[in-house]
Parts: sequence; structure tokens; C-alpha cells
Amino acid sequence: MCRWFVYIGEEPTLLEDVLIKPKHSIVKQIDLHFLPNLHITYDPHVGQNKLSSGVASDEQGPNHFTNIDGFGVGYYTGVAAEFNDDHVNRPCVYRNARPPLNDLNLISLCAHTSTKCVFAHIRAGTGLSPTVETNNHPFVFGRYMFMHNGSVANFSKIKVPLLQKLSTDAYGNIFGTTDTEHVAALFFTHLGNDWDTVVSMEKLKKTMINTLQDILALIQESVKDKDETLPHSSLNFAVTNGCQLLAVRFSSMDEFEPPSLYYSTTAGPTLNRKFPDHPDGKKITKASMRETHEHGKHVIVASEPSTYKAEDWHLVPANSFVLVDKDLNVVVEKVQL
Amino acid sequence: MCRWFVYIGEEPTLLEDVLIKPKHSIVKQIDLHFLPNLHITYDPHVGQNKLSSGVASDEQGPNHFTNIDGFGVGYYTGVAAEFNDDHVNRPCVYRNARPPLNDLNLISLCAHTSTKCVFAHIRAGTGLSPTVETNNHPFVFGRYMFMHNGSVANFSKIKVPLLQKLSTDAYGNIFGTTDTEHVAALFFTHLGNDWDTVVSMEKLKKTMINTLQDILALIQESVKDKDETLPHSSLNFAVTNGCQLLAVRFSSMDEFEPPSLYYSTTAGPTLNRKFPDHPDGKKITKASMRETHEHGKHVIVASEPSTYKAEDWHLVPANSFVLVDKDLNVVVEKVQL
Amino acid sequence: MCRWFVYIGEEPTLLEDVLIKPKHSIVKQIDLHFLPNLHITYDPHVGQNKLSSGVASDEQGPNHFTNIDGFGVGYYTGVAAEFNDDHVNRPCVYRNARPPLNDLNLISLCAHTSTKCVFAHIRAGTGLSPTVETNNHPFVFGRYMFMHNGSVANFSKIKVPLLQKLSTDAYGNIFGTTDTEHVAALFFTHLGNDWDTVVSMEKLKKTMINTLQDILALIQESVKDKDETLPHSSLNFAVTNGCQLLAVRFSSMDEFEPPSLYYSTTAGPTLNRKFPDHPDGKKITKASMRETHEHGKHVIVASEPSTYKAEDWHLVPANSFVLVDKDLNVVVEKVQL
Amino acid sequence: MCRWFVYIGEEPTLLEDVLIKPKHSIVKQIDLHFLPNLHITYDPHVGQNKLSSGVASDEQGPNHFTNIDGFGVGYYTGVAAEFNDDHVNRPCVYRNARPPLNDLNLISLCAHTSTKCVFAHIRAGTGLSPTVETNNHPFVFGRYMFMHNGSVANFSKIKVPLLQKLSTDAYGNIFGTTDTEHVAALFFTHLGNDWDTVVSMEKLKKTMINTLQDILALIQESVKDKDETLPHSSLNFAVTNGCQLLAVRFSSMDEFEPPSLYYSTTAGPTLNRKFPDHPDGKKITKASMRETHEHGKHVIVASEPSTYKAEDWHLVPANSFVLVDKDLNVVVEKVQL
Repeated sequence: MCRWFVYIGEEPTLLEDVLIKPKHSIVKQIDLHFLPNLHITYDPHVGQNKLSSGVASDEQGPNHFTNIDGFGVGYYTGVAAEFNDDHVNRPCVYRNARPPLNDLNLISLCAHTSTKCVFAHIRAGTGLSPTVETNNHPFVFGRYMFMHNGSVANFSKIKVPLLQKLSTDAYGNIFGTTDTEHVAALFFTHLGNDWDTVVSMEKLKKTMINTLQDILALIQESVKDKDETLPHSSLNFAVTNGCQLLAVRFSSMDEFEPPSLYYSTTAGPTLNRKFPDHPDGKKITKASMRETHEHGKHVIVASEPSTYKAEDWHLVPANSFVLVDKDLNVVVEKVQL
Repeated sequence: MCRWFVYIGEEPTLLEDVLIKPKHSIVKQIDLHFLPNLHITYDPHVGQNKLSSGVASDEQGPNHFTNIDGFGVGYYTGVAAEFNDDHVNRPCVYRNARPPLNDLNLISLCAHTSTKCVFAHIRAGTGLSPTVETNNHPFVFGRYMFMHNGSVANFSKIKVPLLQKLSTDAYGNIFGTTDTEHVAALFFTHLGNDWDTVVSMEKLKKTMINTLQDILALIQESVKDKDETLPHSSLNFAVTNGCQLLAVRFSSMDEFEPPSLYYSTTAGPTLNRKFPDHPDGKKITKASMRETHEHGKHVIVASEPSTYKAEDWHLVPANSFVLVDKDLNVVVEKVQL
Repeated sequence: MCRWFVYIGEEPTLLEDVLIKPKHSIVKQIDLHFLPNLHITYDPHVGQNKLSSGVASDEQGPNHFTNIDGFGVGYYTGVAAEFNDDHVNRPCVYRNARPPLNDLNLISLCAHTSTKCVFAHIRAGTGLSPTVETNNHPFVFGRYMFMHNGSVANFSKIKVPLLQKLSTDAYGNIFGTTDTEHVAALFFTHLGNDWDTVVSMEKLKKTMINTLQDILALIQESVKDKDETLPHSSLNFAVTNGCQLLAVRFSSMDEFEPPSLYYSTTAGPTLNRKFPDHPDGKKITKASMRETHEHGKHVIVASEPSTYKAEDWHLVPANSFVLVDKDLNVVVEKVQL
Repeated sequence: MCRWFVYIGEEPTLLEDVLIKPKHSIVKQIDLHFLPNLHITYDPHVGQNKLSSGVASDEQGPNHFTNIDGFGVGYYTGVAAEFNDDHVNRPCVYRNARPPLNDLNLISLCAHTSTKCVFAHIRAGTGLSPTVETNNHPFVFGRYMFMHNGSVANFSKIKVPLLQKLSTDAYGNIFGTTDTEHVAALFFTHLGNDWDTVVSMEKLKKTMINTLQDILALIQESVKDKDETLPHSSLNFAVTNGCQLLAVRFSSMDEFEPPSLYYSTTAGPTLNRKFPDHPDGKKITKASMRETHEHGKHVIVASEPSTYKAEDWHLVPANSFVLVDKDLNVVVEKVQL
């Protein structure tokens, strides 16, 4: 079980303000969890948080909430597009196989970088994919990034048939060994071969639906001749090209709740140091600060809220998309496979 | 706040059996804690475990029980002594700035190495010393190893006067920046310049007393001209030469309990796979297994028990030594400064 | 272009003596090369060593002799076999994605570990497989280790058909993304499902021949419908189970010389600190030292000699096996596909 | 012996254009060297380049030109100054203890980041300071960066007296164990306690002279009572605050030439992808490209030229400053101690 965080907005955010400073920022989501509106029972003997409506999958060990297998962050700077004079705005990605909390490079990078769109991810490996930086999310395909919280059931069994479905380019863009990167390659096979242009929200949604259908069919097939019960998959994905966002909170079976996922269109100012407030509740007054309505439109989607103001955060319903278009309009809708 | 573990015995132990396999082995002491006979209140909001008789020091952040800043293990093989034909049995040390749980090198090493004496340490950095492998314990001085759980108050202020007390050799043997390694250098200055011979238990004890006195005096001096209150230090140290062990559980002030420390002279067989029992309680029967009395004499000293059989573990009283001589006799006695 | 080194003998060797101490030991084969009897032209502008009878492949950049992409070492201790009471003697493996020269863990490990069989490998990545520890050789399958110097042509094209040839176990034992690990999985598919027993030398040889035939056929097939010229592969492999060794120096085309490979049955005493000689020529006298005839039978096979005594080293002929049986008898014979 | 590179200009440069793309860029200066106008004899047996006018110091081993002990890059983005509304423009720093050539994070960072001032450094450790990221240059003090090529003689002997000369702030800003970081702390002690403002070029120069004098005096003192000969130091330093630059090529003894150092005020356009030329000589034509005179004023100072156009590069005379003011005017002048 991992954790991920997305910020997309018309106003640049300082990475430090969204990823590092808040008391419950993603770099601290190693073993502490804040999950408003989810019904959780904590079993101190095994360190496992059980959702009231589901059971943790067998693949995950007793420490599955201990996100210590590294971190990744991807963000758009626009710099290469300007130097190459080609409008191709690909993301910059930094990944490390160590926990982020005391990573001096990450801390410096976040203190000096702002962006209108960032993906961040903290990993708990499943034991099947080693703790090496190439297995850290997000994964980059052209100008797109892709990340995941959850796991694909029977991945080792479906890997070869999945590889056979891939375009040459998508296949050649796999550098690690995670289930997620292979699902991403399938998504970008469905998207077509041009990963440097922006497509319609409808196409993004259709591509994700095709990907989910393929994955579920491959898993179904992997058990068809056997007595095995169909295993459960958790598929909370996020994909962006820097100006649009598709996120999905998805469980392959109704009896299991998918991993937590929240969104907010109001938490941004609280996180921004230019605003007269603070994620942990303290009031700050500074001449240069701007009021809420002076801050830009933005959307945050994250496994856990990064502020303790629960009213700023909405739990995404199970098996639903969060769709954010170029004008930062948000639509939450049921996934229809 | 770190965690450490020592095994010393007449019978070799497989590293995997003591460090990896037990449900509560040291590599898993990242965020789960088992502290029998200590009165603890857990504050879920900050993830902090407060001892009933003390308050966490200010230098430690809210995640101070999250031991994610790397791991170190040191053990004696006797191989170099045999090849060099000189009876100098120095330890082999492996340290990594990442959590040990999914460290493939450590897992392989522990599966294929046995020893009669091992030190292991999982680190929570204080923010003052960076998360780099040279800041991971244990530290080696000749045939000796040294490690620590706790922190030296005002370390940055006492560092220069401490350096001036060091012998050239001890000073030249510092490769990192932790308080612990500097205290170790002071200990080995007091021990004298020959770190390749075995000394009497009395001398080991006297050397540690001198070291504690020096540290406390340096801290005292660092605040003497000022309004500052004397700050508190936690000084749980362990030192070995492969055949003797000195451990100490020490708090510089009576109103603060030192970090937890336990010892056991009976948990070894349960941990050993050749014994018809198991650290987590399951019974195993196998022809090759030996009964308790057929297993060798041994002592384990550790920040937390590595088995859930609380009756095998004794809490070391505050401000006491655990002294283990060459014949593995154990003496627990009050520190008299 | 990588470099590898094998020692197998009836007498244990200290890892430091064969891997670290010699002036031209493998950890120093980063940019300095010693290749007696090979005709080389050095082009200082691109840093490329051209064999007189071949041309460097296109996939390798101008720095292809700069072996900076990490190191791996695997060796047998017999410890797990003793603790598990099952005679299964699997290797201990340590791999790091950094150069070995200043790796403190490796230096300590080599100073304190002896073995009768060791594999060591220093890597120059081809750019297709990232510099992460799981891409460092040797690769372990049960009690066997496998490593490679060279590259498999068109690997990305043959990967999926190769995966389809693998047994479930061999497929499930792949943790990285190199061509070598996939070839190894094919070798261990051909060897059968029991990787914990020792087989005949004949079976090892037959298994390697089948593997080479499969690889060459897959490459042939990958170009069949196209105008492409058949690309060249360099396939210097080594495989051991701790008591037998198969090494092969192989080029897929006669017009290209395979990477260098040497063997020696006499260099061992010079490397061993117990012998009155030294790899770099200095004489040492010490009472405990033993004469040549008192040292054990052994075989070393390596990309480059680790001593400067050229007379101790034989260049393996192109497309030949070096076969070492349980009694350490050496046979060098032509590969007959 | 390390290598460093500085670019400072009125026009932002893409990091990739100056640090990665050129055939002889700093990330490739691992084992290949291009040193126009220096008289070098290459000894292939030890891999050592001897300057005609000096002898390599004893502290450096035979591989001292093998810069494999990690990399660091620091650059100014202006982002924090904007978010904090305080005009304090501190640098962003990324350091890694591995060679940079295949570092995926560095490659991505350089492809997406531009700056008007960058420091880059590739390290060859001396064996006294371990290969950990905190020992990689540049070192940051407020808005300043500091780096070094060479070594301070007798550093372990002068370290304690040097520490006693430091201001509390400078002392508290040391996180590693290199000679360089300690010299930097001395420089910033002399500069005064405000490291966030820009001072006069005269003050920068005076501060460096005081620092050099102190270092030389400390070394002198370290040998005064003994028969020792005064050892030689190589002190090529660079220091910037993002808008001014001081570099110095300095040898403590006339009979030893300092490490190489070049500067250029014309190589910038060739390196910039917007210019109709290319560092390796190929002509490119592209509508968006700008002519030489359309590119901004800039200065590059580096251990080795990063283009093969020798006419663009001037060897800095021994024991001379290169001083670059806020208007990017360059003065080269003799160091007068």
C-alpha cells in the first residue's frame, strides 16, 4: 500500500509547501495516517489498519502501511519546451529508493522549485518488486506521468500476455519491474503513439476504461482453468500531461473498498506560504500575503489529506473517476466498464 | 531514538535467526514496538511513545520512533585472524543508509553468515547528523565495536573540547559526524592505544565510567556561564571485542528514564532454528533439533525483546551496567560515577 | 563491456586477497586494462580499446571500457546448509550500483570472508538497463550463480519470445531487467527445476549449448523479415554451483573476437597472503607461509589477469569452454553448436 | 584530484547543455582528460597524468584521475526568494555519491532546469573522506556555494585548530568530513555572519586571501616542531553567491603546478542549443537559433574545457584569481598573500 499526491493549478506552488512543510505531508506518511470519514480499526499487534468494509490482501505483509521503499516526485518546469522551441513540456522526475523524510537532495529541490503540476509518491513495496529507484513512481511516457496506489492481482501470471499487447514504444519505455509500470505501458499503448500532445478528457477516460478492462480480463484468464478464486486488485491510478488530470479510485470487487482517495479544490491557499493561514491551524500575518480569492484555481487529489482541516477534503466514492480538464474544472463520476 | 541488539554466545548463531526471522526482530522495529514492563502512553496524533517517567527530549521530532535512517551490523568471523596468523579478530561491518527490511544484500548476508558475537543497530537520525552510511552504528576501533541508543545533549557545543581530549589514533578513526562516534573515540582514548587486545572487565567498566564522567562534565561546562538549564542525555551504549560485552542503560538525570534495554540468557534457543520451538510460539519438530540444555550459553542485550515471550526478558534497571565476561557470566550492577 | 573474475579451489581464499589487494584486481578494472596476448589499439580520443580482429558494437558508447555501473560478488559459506541440515549450499551475494573501489561495506566484507568459490563482476551498463543493484551480476538460481561479459544483440526484440520459453520458476526468479538475467533464466529452464543439486559436467555443457542455440535462433528470428543485417553478440558466461564451473568465451560471428578471457591454475599462491610471493612481484618472508606445492589445487578464470605475471595466465581460445569438475580438473574445448 | 565547472551569465543556460551534452562535459571527465597547453606525460602503468612541472602528491593513489566518488551540482532558481518575498536567492543543490554518467535523476534534472549560475563538481576521494553524498561539493552557506579541486596538506592535523577559529554559525554548517568544507567554513567565518547579502568583489578577494593565509599558517604550524618537510597543498577554489564569482588557481609551493584551470567568455553560445553551432564541431541550422552576438554575456571557469575548441579557452596562470563581478566583467590577477 503506497500513498500518492497530486497538485494541479493555475498558480504555481512551491514544492516544499505541498510536499514537505505540512504536518501530515506525504513525506511523513510513513507510519502515521489521517483518514477522515473512513472507518478504520487499528490492530497494534500487526500494525495493520483494516478498513471496516474490506480485508487487506494476502500479498501485503503485516507492515504494509509502512511506506519505506522510496519516493518519487515529477513536476513540469516548461524549461525544455522553451529551449527546444517545440512546446513539448515533459516532466522532470526525481526518484530515490530511500524514505524521503531526511533526503537532503529532495529537501533542497523542494525548497527551490515551483510548478503548476506535481505528482508525488511514497512506496511500500510488495516484496515482488525490489526496492530500487526504477521501481519508484511516477513513470514517464513522453509528456505524461502515471502512478498507482494498490496492487494488480496475479501480476506475475499476466505479465507475459500483457507484454504481448504492448506497442513497441510502450514496451521500450519500461525500465523497472513493477505491476504499475506495465499497466502504464498498456495505458499508453491504448492512448496511441503520440505521448507529446494533449488529448480530450473523453479520450483519457476511454483509455483508462480500456486499460482497466484489459487488466481485469487478463486476471480472469489467469485463473480460468483452475480452482483458484479470482483475486482482488486495488487500482487507484493517476495520470497527467501537465495540464489535465485523470485519477481513479477503483477496487476490482465490490466487497473490498479501494484504497483511500481524497480531493480538494480549497486546500491550496492554506498550504501556500503566501496565504494568511497555515495547514496546521496557526494564523500568520504578513504584508505580502494574499487572501483566498486572490489565489488561483487548483485541484489536489491525494491518498490522504495533507492538512488537518477535514472540511477541505472530499472522499472520492469507490470506483469513481476524478477528471480535471485544462480549465481546472472537476468532474467526479462513476467508472462504467 | 534508535534500537540496538547484541548476541554473544559460545554457540554460533545464524544472523538470519536473530536479526531477520523473528516477528519482532530488529529490522522490523521501524514503527512497531514491544516494550514489556515499561509504562507507555501512545499519542496517535504525533506518533510518539511517552515513557510514564520521562518526557521526550526536544531535539527529537514527532516521528522519533520511526527508525528509518539506516542500519548497521557488525560480527566476528575469525577469518582475517586465521589468514594473518596474528590472532587479531576484528569485526566485519555492513552499514546502509536505508531501512533494512527490504535490503537484499543484508538479507543474503544474514542467510549465509553465522557468528558468536553480533551487534545490530537501526537508526533514527536526530536531524543534526545526515542520513549517510558512515553515520550508522556500530563503529569499529581495532577489534572493538561500539554503538548507542539515545543522544548526547549539546553535542555541537562540546564537540571541539571533546576532540581536544582524543588521542591521535582515536581522532583519526572518526569517519562520520555523529555524537556516538565521538563518544566512542573518547572511550578508546581512555582504553589506551592498543585496540587489538582483550582487557579485564574491570578495565572496560572503568573506561566507560571515565567516558561518562567526561561527557557529563563537558555538557556541564557547555552551560556554565549561561542561564540555560542543563539538558538531558540518553546514553545506552554497548561495546564488545568479540568475547566480552559491556552494555549500559544510562540517563543523565533521575527524572528521565533512559531508553528501554532488556537482556536475556534464555531466548537464544527459541531463536535458533535448530531448536524445537519458535520465537512466535509455533512448535516445530525436526530430527536434527536439539533441546534447550544442548544449546550453548549466551547473552542477548537489546532495546526491545525480539521474541514475544516476555518471561525470557529482563528489563535492565536504569543507570546500570550489563557486564558479560569471556565465560559468558552476566553481572548487572549500578553505575557508580 | 564488463569484467568478471572466478576463483574455485580446494583451499579457501580470503576475498581481499583475490578481489582487492592485487594492483590489477577486479575492483580497479575501471579504466585500466592489462590484456596480454591480445592485440589492442587504444584510441585516446574516444577512450576505446579496439581488438585487432573486431569492431566494438554500436550499442556501446565511447566510454564502454569505463566499468562504473556497479559491482557484485557471490561466494559460498556453507553456513545455511549446516543450519538447515539439508546440504543445500546456496551462495551469499552482495551487489551495489556504485564502483567498488571505495565501497566500505565491500572492503570490510572481503577482509573478513574466505571461500572456496567466488564470482565477482564489475559492470558497464549498455544504457538499456539502468544502474540499479538488481542489474548487477552475479544472478542466483538456487545454489547456482550466473554472470556475463558482453551483450545479447537485439535483446529488447527477443525478450518476449524468450520469456515464453521459460519455466514458471525461472521466470519468477527474474528481479532485474538485464539481458544476462534473462539468458540465465533460459539456462535454468533447460537445466530443469531442481537448482539445488549438482549435475554432471556433461549436462552443464549441454545446457549451455542449448541456451546458446536458443539465443542465436531468437536473434536470427528477430531479423528474419527485414533488411537488417544480423547483429553481433558477445557471450562470455560463467556458471557455478560452488563445486563445478562452466565458463565460455563466445562470439556469435567469426569476424568478431569475443571479449577477453583468461584462466590460470597457478596464480592462486601468488595471490594468497600465506605464500612467500606477491602479485606485484615483491618477495615476503614469514614463518607461517607455505610453499607453492603446499597450496591447494585451484582454477581462476577472469576477463583480465589479476597479477602482472603474464606467464601464469592462458588466453582462452575464441568460442571455447573452460570446464572445471568437482576434482578441479580443467578441460578447455571448442564450443560445438 | 577532482574536476569542477562554473557557468555564470546574463542569459540562462539549460543544465543539460553545459553539463551533459558536450562530448567532454564534466559528467564524462571520469577517466578521459583534455588539457590544452598543459604539458602532460601519461604513465599507462599507473594511470597517472604527471604535469611536467610537478609531482603528484603522496596522498593520491594511482587512480587519482579516476573521478568516481560522486557528483554535485548547485544552481540558482530564484523561486524561494519569490515565495518568501525576501530577495534571498539561495542555491538548490543535488549531490550523489555515485558517478553522474548514468544517474537518471541528474539526467532528468539537467534536461528540465535552466539557470544563470551553476556550480558542478565530480569527485575523486582521497581515501581520508568516505564516499558519501555529504562529502560531495558544492557546499552551501546561505546564498553562497563553495567548491574545490585539490587537497589541503596535513588536514587531519590542522582540523582541530581550524575548528577553533570558526564562528558558531560556520561551524554549525559543516555536515561532512572533507578538508574543503572546513576551509569553506573558515572562509565564511572571515566573510562575517550574514551569508545572504552580496558584498564587494574586494571583500570577496580579501576574504579568500585571509583564508589562504590561515590555511598556510596552520599547515606551517603543524610541522613546526618536527623534522617533517612542509607538505604541498593544491587549492583551486570557487565561490559564488549567484551573481558574483571568485575562482582561484593556487599551489602552496612554486615547484608544484596547481591543478589545471581554464576560463572562457566565448564558449557559451557553442554550448547553447539555441546557437547555430555545436560543441563538437557539427553545424546545425534552425530558425529559432540566435547568432553569437545575440547571446548573453557569460563566463565559464572549469578544470578542463568542455568543448574541443581550444581557442575558446584560456589557461588561468598559476596562483591567480579569476574575479567576475555583477556585470560579468572578468579580471584575472595574481594572488598577493
